[in-house]
Amino acid sequence: MKGDIEISAAREADVPLILAFVNELADFEKLQHQVVASETSLRDALFGPHPSAHSVVARCAGEPAGFALYFFNFSTFLGKPGLYLEDLYVRPAYRGRGIGKALLTHLARLALERDCGRFEWAVLDWNQPARDFYQSLGAQANPTWINYRVTGEALRRLAGAAP
Amino acid sequence: MKGDIEISAAREADVPLILAFVNELADFEKLQHQVVASETSLRDALFGPHPSAHSVVARCAGEPAGFALYFFNFSTFLGKPGLYLEDLYVRPAYRGRGIGKALLTHLARLALERDCGRFEWAVLDWNQPARDFYQSLGAQANPTWINYRVTGEALRRLAGAAP
Repeated sequence: MKGDIEISAAREADVPLILAFVNELADFEKLQHQVVASETSLRDALFGPHPSAHSVVARCAGEPAGFALYFFNFSTFLGKPGLYLEDLYVRPAYRGRGIGKALLTHLARLALERDCGRFEWAVLDWNQPARDFYQSLGAQANPTWINYRVTGEALRRLAGAAP
Repeated sequence: MKGDIEISAAREADVPLILAFVNELADFEKLQHQVVASETSLRDALFGPHPSAHSVVARCAGEPAGFALYFFNFSTFLGKPGLYLEDLYVRPAYRGRGIGKALLTHLARLALERDCGRFEWAVLDWNQPARDFYQSLGAQANPTWINYRVTGEALRRLAGAAP
């Protein structure tokens, strides 16, 4: 039942729960090997003196059911910030109850409150159920943009710190 | 000559120049119709009380040649911030002199200084010269992620603010 879903800003006591969600999501995405986040790094990012990200937790009859993690980005074309959804996850046992939609609706409201021009995220190309779901909510795919990334040794090399 | 290239953090007096660069870049990307940024919105974002983005300007023998605009994002998997390059542009007359690489190197250093786990950006899929250039610098394409976006009326509808 919809009335059972409660969405609230994460508190510092939720950090272990958020790390558990991050790991469960990575398992689903077959990217568990990429997770090096710890409770310390998440606590610092979400609740440190200069938070770089924010999180909301969804509870169903009081039980943790899912979460979203987001930050604010910026569009030069719009000359405005945007809300970027980094992670969205609902535990398998709680799917099909509208929790994902409730989380997205919550963030869309937050985006408007903060005068954001866009609400954006990325999805793995093979995750067709998610893509269909996002499309049904009015989101549009932007497949003409390809993401590039420099990390680890390549980043140090580009910075000139390594030969 | 390499020695002629000077890269420095943008100052408030550079806002009209940055807006000109944004418009020139949009022309090149065939996306001019998407630009609604103004000097006011850019000034607020870059130099207001709560900056949401930052910019560096490249000058060649004192003449403005290009710029980069970036902000900090966050990776849950790494539990660390990342540096996200929103715009990179070099004026046609100044291309082929290593200015693009100098801007990217400058930002890679900044990313390491700020303990960022990643340096990321997106490129239009048809811009093969740019893609080849990025690859030559050690960047890797992540084509498995598709960007989704909700904006304008669809964003208000998702937020429940419009029927």
